[in-house]
Amino acid sequence: MSISTTDDLGIFESLESQVRSYSRSWPVVFDRAVGSTLFDEEGRDYLDFFSGAGALNYGHNNPALKEVLIRYLADDRIIHSLDMFTTARRDFLQTFSESILAPRDLDYRVVFPGPGGANAVEAALKLARKVTGRESVVNFTNAFHGMTLGALSVTGNSLKRGGAGVPLVHATPMPYDDYFNQDYPDFFYFERLLTDSGSGLNLPAAVIVETVQGEGGINAARAEWLRGLADLCRRHEILLIVDDVQMGCGRTGGFFSFEEAGIVPDMICLSKSISGSGLPMALTLVRPELDIWEPGEHNGTFRGIAPAFATATEAIRTYWQDDALEKSTIRKGARVEGRFNAIVSRHGEADLVSKGRGLARGLQFADGETADAVCRAAFERGLLMETSGPVGEVMKILPALTITDAELDRGLDIIETSVAEVLAA
Amino acid sequence: MSISTTDDLGIFESLESQVRSYSRSWPVVFDRAVGSTLFDEEGRDYLDFFSGAGALNYGHNNPALKEVLIRYLADDRIIHSLDMFTTARRDFLQTFSESILAPRDLDYRVVFPGPGGANAVEAALKLARKVTGRESVVNFTNAFHGMTLGALSVTGNSLKRGGAGVPLVHATPMPYDDYFNQDYPDFFYFERLLTDSGSGLNLPAAVIVETVQGEGGINAARAEWLRGLADLCRRHEILLIVDDVQMGCGRTGGFFSFEEAGIVPDMICLSKSISGSGLPMALTLVRPELDIWEPGEHNGTFRGIAPAFATATEAIRTYWQDDALEKSTIRKGARVEGRFNAIVSRHGEADLVSKGRGLARGLQFADGETADAVCRAAFERGLLMETSGPVGEVMKILPALTITDAELDRGLDIIETSVAEVLAA
Amino acid sequence: MSISTTDDLGIFESLESQVRSYSRSWPVVFDRAVGSTLFDEEGRDYLDFFSGAGALNYGHNNPALKEVLIRYLADDRIIHSLDMFTTARRDFLQTFSESILAPRDLDYRVVFPGPGGANAVEAALKLARKVTGRESVVNFTNAFHGMTLGALSVTGNSLKRGGAGVPLVHATPMPYDDYFNQDYPDFFYFERLLTDSGSGLNLPAAVIVETVQGEGGINAARAEWLRGLADLCRRHEILLIVDDVQMGCGRTGGFFSFEEAGIVPDMICLSKSISGSGLPMALTLVRPELDIWEPGEHNGTFRGIAPAFATATEAIRTYWQDDALEKSTIRKGARVEGRFNAIVSRHGEADLVSKGRGLARGLQFADGETADAVCRAAFERGLLMETSGPVGEVMKILPALTITDAELDRGLDIIETSVAEVLAA
Amino acid sequence: MSISTTDDLGIFESLESQVRSYSRSWPVVFDRAVGSTLFDEEGRDYLDFFSGAGALNYGHNNPALKEVLIRYLADDRIIHSLDMFTTARRDFLQTFSESILAPRDLDYRVVFPGPGGANAVEAALKLARKVTGRESVVNFTNAFHGMTLGALSVTGNSLKRGGAGVPLVHATPMPYDDYFNQDYPDFFYFERLLTDSGSGLNLPAAVIVETVQGEGGINAARAEWLRGLADLCRRHEILLIVDDVQMGCGRTGGFFSFEEAGIVPDMICLSKSISGSGLPMALTLVRPELDIWEPGEHNGTFRGIAPAFATATEAIRTYWQDDALEKSTIRKGARVEGRFNAIVSRHGEADLVSKGRGLARGLQFADGETADAVCRAAFERGLLMETSGPVGEVMKILPALTITDAELDRGLDIIETSVAEVLAA
Repeated sequence: MSISTTDDLGIFESLESQVRSYSRSWPVVFDRAVGSTLFDEEGRDYLDFFSGAGALNYGHNNPALKEVLIRYLADDRIIHSLDMFTTARRDFLQTFSESILAPRDLDYRVVFPGPGGANAVEAALKLARKVTGRESVVNFTNAFHGMTLGALSVTGNSLKRGGAGVPLVHATPMPYDDYFNQDYPDFFYFERLLTDSGSGLNLPAAVIVETVQGEGGINAARAEWLRGLADLCRRHEILLIVDDVQMGCGRTGGFFSFEEAGIVPDMICLSKSISGSGLPMALTLVRPELDIWEPGEHNGTFRGIAPAFATATEAIRTYWQDDALEKSTIRKGARVEGRFNAIVSRHGEADLVSKGRGLARGLQFADGETADAVCRAAFERGLLMETSGPVGEVMKILPALTITDAELDRGLDIIETSVAEVLAA
Repeated sequence: MSISTTDDLGIFESLESQVRSYSRSWPVVFDRAVGSTLFDEEGRDYLDFFSGAGALNYGHNNPALKEVLIRYLADDRIIHSLDMFTTARRDFLQTFSESILAPRDLDYRVVFPGPGGANAVEAALKLARKVTGRESVVNFTNAFHGMTLGALSVTGNSLKRGGAGVPLVHATPMPYDDYFNQDYPDFFYFERLLTDSGSGLNLPAAVIVETVQGEGGINAARAEWLRGLADLCRRHEILLIVDDVQMGCGRTGGFFSFEEAGIVPDMICLSKSISGSGLPMALTLVRPELDIWEPGEHNGTFRGIAPAFATATEAIRTYWQDDALEKSTIRKGARVEGRFNAIVSRHGEADLVSKGRGLARGLQFADGETADAVCRAAFERGLLMETSGPVGEVMKILPALTITDAELDRGLDIIETSVAEVLAA
Repeated sequence: MSISTTDDLGIFESLESQVRSYSRSWPVVFDRAVGSTLFDEEGRDYLDFFSGAGALNYGHNNPALKEVLIRYLADDRIIHSLDMFTTARRDFLQTFSESILAPRDLDYRVVFPGPGGANAVEAALKLARKVTGRESVVNFTNAFHGMTLGALSVTGNSLKRGGAGVPLVHATPMPYDDYFNQDYPDFFYFERLLTDSGSGLNLPAAVIVETVQGEGGINAARAEWLRGLADLCRRHEILLIVDDVQMGCGRTGGFFSFEEAGIVPDMICLSKSISGSGLPMALTLVRPELDIWEPGEHNGTFRGIAPAFATATEAIRTYWQDDALEKSTIRKGARVEGRFNAIVSRHGEADLVSKGRGLARGLQFADGETADAVCRAAFERGLLMETSGPVGEVMKILPALTITDAELDRGLDIIETSVAEVLAA
Repeated sequence: MSISTTDDLGIFESLESQVRSYSRSWPVVFDRAVGSTLFDEEGRDYLDFFSGAGALNYGHNNPALKEVLIRYLADDRIIHSLDMFTTARRDFLQTFSESILAPRDLDYRVVFPGPGGANAVEAALKLARKVTGRESVVNFTNAFHGMTLGALSVTGNSLKRGGAGVPLVHATPMPYDDYFNQDYPDFFYFERLLTDSGSGLNLPAAVIVETVQGEGGINAARAEWLRGLADLCRRHEILLIVDDVQMGCGRTGGFFSFEEAGIVPDMICLSKSISGSGLPMALTLVRPELDIWEPGEHNGTFRGIAPAFATATEAIRTYWQDDALEKSTIRKGARVEGRFNAIVSRHGEADLVSKGRGLARGLQFADGETADAVCRAAFERGLLMETSGPVGEVMKILPALTITDAELDRGLDIIETSVAEVLAA
């Protein structure tokens, strides 16, 4: 299939800011979407291994969620409610508490920090600073936490950092797991700086970490590294914030991506797939003793998007009453891993690496141009994927957790073909 | 009517962070809402002079928008699309261009900065700094621009600023219109600092201003003050950002709140009522020559909430093809002003002041306790209003622009009674 | 007299950084100096109305101080001692306590902050922040406090601020006395911001002020303005720091420049003329209850320049046992004022203003070019003066307090002639 | 010898700030000093292995410098001259150029940044930021560069950093040489961060480094590490600033401490012993092409302390016309090293380490208490030494370069005895 760009793109080009990016890779106009399939306005279909950058773990227009959403709207139930009490908010809190927190023996207070992941991060950083009375935060190389000023200061990407227009301060990057190919002990540098009173590192209020760095290149931290980090934080009385915005909600298997490591963060940031329907919603979970805010000290307009609460509740009811989805995700992830390993073996290039955990998977190429060419080749074949990593060298896939095996295989076939085509060129 | 709190509030109290605030004033659980009426789960109705803090200018579950929204969802059209091209985005851009920008002879590029108003502000500040190569920004006393770190730094409220946990820098407050009861010439201080190379004021990249400060206490700047500000910015080559998040979308009459003053800002922030339906959406409008971003330099997950685009488009089609809504808003605003003036006259207290423009109106009391007592008394009679201002001394109303005259009068009657009751106490 | 530049300036031009400035106005090579006279290497003499920018209040090579200094060195007494106990330090502390602090009923602890005025300011700001737990500081328009990063952040001059290379933050400028020609009440803006919790001004740790702004253009604050400032600080629990680096040590009459206003600052910065001999020395005086530093929390190499202590002690013994110098300074200052007023009257130009207090005096011209031309014309006649003010529009004189009446008159004659020559041109 | 504290210390205790530190270790009142001997006011003598923290490389009251200094003063030559041309300044520039720069084939412009080392550092950082347009700077673990805000931000010591009262930003610490006992390749982390555009490290304007960290614990970087650093800076277009305030002026052998490594920094900071006499003086040397300052963009009062120029010139004439001093320093340093190694061998403790280069030497003990006890024991025997390192665990000696072999041996004997006494306890 060859994608023509006969669609009318004029209004986008003349009116929308040139900051737009995804539309440059996929110059077609999308209209409908169901499950793992998108349709452009000319009716062509695309298999989705992108999933709204992780915001669509249950697929597009998931029937169970769609039904709930339409019924909610049809019944004139409240849509916008800030932090007012609503039946939708109560249902969500109860369901989240009973089906997510309680079975995992987790005890958190729920903050509704605003509509998106950056709000969840900003709220966590603010509260961590208030609780500890310290300013600085440690983040990790190649971290991505968002584009607002506080979230951007703990993000690694230099293009995005440069866009801030003011110096980004109060954050110090530390090496993420495997940053040195395991040549050195974990945390050898971080720990050394903390125990050396002359190191010049301001004692941090918090460490913020992704268990798998999605934007950073599908870098999956080992469970023992995460445990080591949790231990280091406990010993030095530093708060541990897990940013589970992209990797939470089942992306790596369990509802929270850190479950596998057996750690319990002090704060957790959730967004993207928490509403299930693609509608904006975000949560910051904080240990009860950290909940020392004054009423209204953090607020915002879009903290009560009740239709999102309704679909979030339904998503938990549908997918998180047992471990079926978790097991399926792990199984599908293994399937992807097997295929990726095979691709790596076949091409036998040192620069070609299979990466990831659960259904967050990547193929790392020698450079960004190669990864980009593979994504373009796949798009020509009707598959949507994006690249990530410092120079875009990682072909990144985040299929819906609800993808069928047939769809998964079809996409993997396209990837295999596309890789072969590009590497042969 | 006396509101009992027999509703089951337990889960909120045990699970939600104590940062929640609106639910403290209104301890009932809301469930349904239509037009200017909310219903709690026990079926009691409440007249809404709050309107989701300005996010519901067209009322709750406006039938025209609701129909479009349900149809959009029922047709499995795309919900979540980041900055991909979609038919919904194109329809919005075209409609916004033809019905909003063109008739007003305005030429802007549209940035989709993220889901909420703070994102619109963060994007504007970033771009202003990039364009000018300067860091500092001038804001105004009692400004409110949002809760993320960049937006918070230009916000005045000391409780909210204190919550940042890091020093808020790169911003200098200047006196808003009438900060000194017009005892001094407009901009006498700001202009003096700018022309004095020894003043110590870093030359700002931008000035960010609300034409009416909602959170700050319904302070309505005079048109000539706004024109003076625009002139000052032009003379000193400072970018002028109008934050129209709360006062835009017809709140003061015209679609943009600055139209009355006849100024043309360099950047405009919109959110809250732009989607019409209460769903999150935000825009940053920038003069074409300022659109110097690299692709992807600013991004984010929730920049393509297509159902919000669909209702935003329909709202423009329904309400902004002629000046009927604008005239109606001005007329209703005058009606409120008349009643408020009468209340002021009747009580003859120096501290009681009628404030506002269009349907953003306030009654300023001697202190926050009095304003609060009035809002509580009104809530007992089934009317929702909040307070604003530095110490909450302003009873603030933002009725839906679509409110009927009968509803408006009913609410004003409740206010009159409540004020009388409280001031008599 | 016409100054030729036949001196060998080659090594300066080829080796010294182009940041040098005074040598551009006075392109001769100075060699000897006594009292109020400098001699260049060709033996020409210059009358000194500059006095090392205020570091030579007792004249060059004052015989009393010179004798003590040479004896100190000849006896092999300790020169460099950091903060070790030395007899020279003890003599100074005792003399300063008995002859300066006690008679004025002042109670301060003495910090030796480093060699120069910027160190005195940095130490005061650090301690004020530590004591209050706040970060921000209020300074005044056209303030000058030094060139190190902390001192520079409270300095107004935009060229010097721009040289920092990082944004200067944590400081907010307020209008100095007479910034608006007394059109508005004192502190109307500062007080308003402090009492308005929504103003956006971070509550400052301290206010730092010069009683007469030397670099800022010889702006002399009125005594009632200083008292108002002290009162404002007390009411809002803000520490008051008087930077007396240039105006202290008798420059305006009393030893401290704030004595006339009857205020008692929380901290005082002294340097420049404190050693009397022109050798580097600085003090930060702090109220005893503010002295909460840990040993060594602030330190530095040049905090015990014992020869400077020796001459500082002798200067106090020679000049501050009675009020003779104070009276003489006030008398000479009045003499200058009379002559300056006559010049102003004669030329009758609105832009020509006589300014100052004590022997810190200025003539303000319409622009920097005129003031510069007057200084050049005076230099041609053998008189050294510099300009100050935001655009260098103020001819500034700081004659030695020990200048003879004849010398003073001779200099004033030169000024009169030079002004007439320039204004006639 | 037992030191009694019958000296009158009352005035110090009642009047001086408790921030004083050296006087706590040495509770006697010093009065006279010659060469390597100090005398207290009761006539007791002390052998000086402290040398004014490195400001007295040529000893106290060095006869050659003393003679020049007294003659300079006796002749009424100018003392205080800001950046005016003076014969003293010209003599210094010529001598420095001919005898220091030219023989080493170095080409620098000379900035007179203010009286002390912190001024030299502040000036270097400002200019580096101006030249590159970048804000951040990389410093090293356990660095010490001064106590003003800019210098403090690149200093490691947590007590001193904490004293700033504002967050210290714009600087990131990197591991100094041997921070990990050479377990890892040099610059493995720094280089990785620089080459990874997603690392989150803002590209620095400059790296500031000491070749031997004095305050940090006499950590001597290897020559190949310094060469690696210079190479890394060149490859990444980062300016290299060597802070030679304590280790320059012959302390490690050559005039500049980096000569041995064969590198050529972009900027050099000098102070402490540059005047030779203990009088304050500082220089910032910058490569000619970096000298882009506007006239007056950096200034200050004490930049022309002409008596210091006179003794600085004489020190160069006396000690730097041949390599005699350099060879003597290296020989004496080797003598110390030999004795220290013997002490280490004798006690055979793993925690006892001999450190340093030239005549900057240290003995590292297990903890600060031990090092402190050794210094106290030595003081009881009439020897002055201080501790350094993160917890004060290093006994640090900086004998005058002019110390006699007999004095050196006597001091080393005292150290040997003191160490034995303390370790036996």
